[in-house]
Amino acid sequence: QLKQLLQALTPAEIADLLEALKPSDRLVVWRLLPPEVAGEVLVELHEEVRTSLIKALEKTDAEDLIEAAEALDPDDLADIVEDLPETIRDKVVQALSRHDRSRLERVLTYPEDTAGSLMRTDTITVRPDVTLDVVLRYLRQRGELPDLTDALYVVDKDDRLIGVLPLSVLLTSDPHKTVRELMLTEVEAIPATLPASDVAMLFEHHDWVSAPVVDEEGRLVGRITVDDVVDVIRDEAEHTIMSQAGLSEETDMFAPVSESAKRRAVWLGVNLVTAFLAAWVIGLFEDTIQKEVALAVLMPIVASMGGIAGTQTQTLVIRALALKQIGEANVWTLLAREIAIGLINGVLWAIVVGVIAAIWFQALHIGLLIAAAMIINLLCAAFAGVMIPLLLDKLGIDPALAGGVVLTTVTDVVGFLAFLGLASWWLFS
Amino acid sequence: QLKQLLQALTPAEIADLLEALKPSDRLVVWRLLPPEVAGEVLVELHEEVRTSLIKALEKTDAEDLIEAAEALDPDDLADIVEDLPETIRDKVVQALSRHDRSRLERVLTYPEDTAGSLMRTDTITVRPDVTLDVVLRYLRQRGELPDLTDALYVVDKDDRLIGVLPLSVLLTSDPHKTVRELMLTEVEAIPATLPASDVAMLFEHHDWVSAPVVDEEGRLVGRITVDDVVDVIRDEAEHTIMSQAGLSEETDMFAPVSESAKRRAVWLGVNLVTAFLAAWVIGLFEDTIQKEVALAVLMPIVASMGGIAGTQTQTLVIRALALKQIGEANVWTLLAREIAIGLINGVLWAIVVGVIAAIWFQALHIGLLIAAAMIINLLCAAFAGVMIPLLLDKLGIDPALAGGVVLTTVTDVVGFLAFLGLASWWLFS
Ligand SMILES: [Mg+2]
Ligand SMILES: [Mg+2]
Ligand SMILES: [Mg+2]
Ligand SMILES: [Mg+2]
Ligand SMILES: [Mg+2]
Ligand SMILES: [Mg+2]
Ligand SMILES: [Mg+2]
Ligand SMILES: [Mg+2]
Ligand SMILES: [Mg+2]
Ligand SMILES: [Mg+2]
Ligand SMILES: [Mg+2]
Ligand SMILES: [Mg+2]
Ligand SMILES: [Mg+2]
Repeated sequence: QLKQLLQALTPAEIADLLEALKPSDRLVVWRLLPPEVAGEVLVELHEEVRTSLIKALEKTDAEDLIEAAEALDPDDLADIVEDLPETIRDKVVQALSRHDRSRLERVLTYPEDTAGSLMRTDTITVRPDVTLDVVLRYLRQRGELPDLTDALYVVDKDDRLIGVLPLSVLLTSDPHKTVRELMLTEVEAIPATLPASDVAMLFEHHDWVSAPVVDEEGRLVGRITVDDVVDVIRDEAEHTIMSQAGLSEETDMFAPVSESAKRRAVWLGVNLVTAFLAAWVIGLFEDTIQKEVALAVLMPIVASMGGIAGTQTQTLVIRALALKQIGEANVWTLLAREIAIGLINGVLWAIVVGVIAAIWFQALHIGLLIAAAMIINLLCAAFAGVMIPLLLDKLGIDPALAGGVVLTTVTDVVGFLAFLGLASWWLFS
Repeated sequence: QLKQLLQALTPAEIADLLEALKPSDRLVVWRLLPPEVAGEVLVELHEEVRTSLIKALEKTDAEDLIEAAEALDPDDLADIVEDLPETIRDKVVQALSRHDRSRLERVLTYPEDTAGSLMRTDTITVRPDVTLDVVLRYLRQRGELPDLTDALYVVDKDDRLIGVLPLSVLLTSDPHKTVRELMLTEVEAIPATLPASDVAMLFEHHDWVSAPVVDEEGRLVGRITVDDVVDVIRDEAEHTIMSQAGLSEETDMFAPVSESAKRRAVWLGVNLVTAFLAAWVIGLFEDTIQKEVALAVLMPIVASMGGIAGTQTQTLVIRALALKQIGEANVWTLLAREIAIGLINGVLWAIVVGVIAAIWFQALHIGLLIAAAMIINLLCAAFAGVMIPLLLDKLGIDPALAGGVVLTTVTDVVGFLAFLGLASWWLFS
């Protein structure tokens, strides 16, 4: 019954389903799958889920695992080959035909997150001097095209890419013409070493279905298809969102508690250091707080408003960085604009908060102090919100991961320092 | 010179470029574009940038704007038609052929963010009883296929979709066979009212290049292509990330300062209410703080660690919600797991923080108090991190937008309440 239900699902859907199950149930479901599907499901799983599932299968179901891996295309096999235990990996590689083994090796040559590791090797190539008629006959004789084939690639005798013949041209042109006459020659081939995120941008901008991949000598080595680009885009988006919380996009919702706890502890530890820094700043003003407890009541407001305002600026800047929209030409305009917005909102909310605080504690000076501190912190937040992501990016640190921690540390420290510092100057002078 | 540079760019790339420019420069660059490109650039711009550009062009360049809009395909025109000033919109619609106008109307029938509004109307249809040979001749005579055409749609005389003929089948099969013999009949056609995010999931799971869209009676009304799905996925990801900071994904980095300030003020105002709530909780314990200022120094640590831990849980849950991976079947397992992790990390960091605090303030009771408060807050954070997004989702509120505010309010309030409450019970009893 469950088996029938699974038949109606794609491997990607089954992978989503497995991820939602407890590890023990995953095993049960995976065992119901036919080998071709079982392999593709492994490819579609989040890495952490895949590794733990493979580990669970390794002893009891080694044969099924080998069968599933063997059923994969070389490019998909390349995605999971590192996650296979050595004994199984060896058996799978040995079972490959010589041709498939060389295709697998070609894909594995390139580091993860490059065009080379994204590509598939199932290109159809034609020579420039044949007529379309010949090509059409060849295709009919060949039968079936690889998935997502929207073009044939035209190569010379050294396998160098010299043109592209879209299927739509093949279908709508005079069959007596030659490939050379009709092929597109202004081809933007993708270098195999191009980062995956740049590949995704090219596909987005050009609305491609597939694109040829070439090595340094311009030889055709494979092609990238849009379905895999869609996965890259989703992964990138997940990566950004999960990073902000110090998590990995490959996280398993049902990983063993001890492992999850360990990994999350790291992020909590980082945050604890910054929290102690803020506490130390507050500690500098113990006497001031003793004299005026209202300060302790109100100080989190100053820090938190700075954090929120800074996060807004930083989020805008991180998006612009991802779209390559920030450079020398506009960074100062952007900074000036953010500071102006910070000033306007600083003044606005300083008045609101100042009035409420003055009334609450029946003390004008409390209102004035918090108002001044708010303005200072929102200006700082604007400045930090622009500069921190730019700086982290320059240093090669992912601003989505580190930006939030650094920014809120700045706004906490500045907020407490401004509010308590001003107050201590007021009270003790 | 700039004009030549622009010729090498796709409309999407020009749109990204425009977004990085000051509004006054955007005008200058847009005016350099040929009408076909100028129109597509408008479609690719973030909505806020598009509206402000159109507003700036409306008076001085009305003719160019009309020309650019007229050059668009009906489905792209549909995306921007609402942003055009009425006079221009009328002229553009009048200039359309009757056929194009009915295509435009068909797309506009469906609400934004449904399959119907995403679809294009350039389908190629064939009848089931003709042979492939006839189809091939028809295509040659027709010349050029619409972009991203990977299949012809087979319809009956009432326009009802009865099958799909992929180009790859057309190219590799015996030309004497009929369409009916070769067409795929197990077609998953997309209902025109399906939400865009579900369309994106279908494309991701099935690795489609294009898919037919049908109305309630099963009549073919258009098709969706993967390039537009890629844009949906990017928009969704941007939406999630920008929402977390209370921003819209359509935001213009260089919108007028006054407008940006106004919109951001709303988010700051929401946050201020929650900050005052936390301040009010602290205010309940003024006497306690007066007696023991160390509490004021340490209390932000408790609140902040709860916020971080809760955000981690909540981020996981929001992702799982988006992937439809949470249901009755696993929510309790998930909650139990998160609470276990919260307990482990609560105890771990309670010990660390407790020891440091006890040494810092030379007072064992301070260490014990903060340790107890940490454990309470991290347990609460785990619970809130699971329940808040589920609750918001049930209420139809986007957890990415509201989740962060609600969660940190809970962890702030619980953190302050636990720490100061325990302390006041200790000190005054
Ligand atoms: Mg998945
Ligand atoms: Mg992955
Ligand atoms: Mg593949
Ligand atoms: Mg990997
Ligand atoms: Mg691969
Ligand atoms: Mg695009
Ligand atoms: Mg795939
Ligand atoms: Mg864009
Ligand atoms: Mg829109
Ligand atoms: Mg379009
Ligand atoms: Mg549209
Ligand atoms: Mg897919
Ligand atoms: Mg498009």
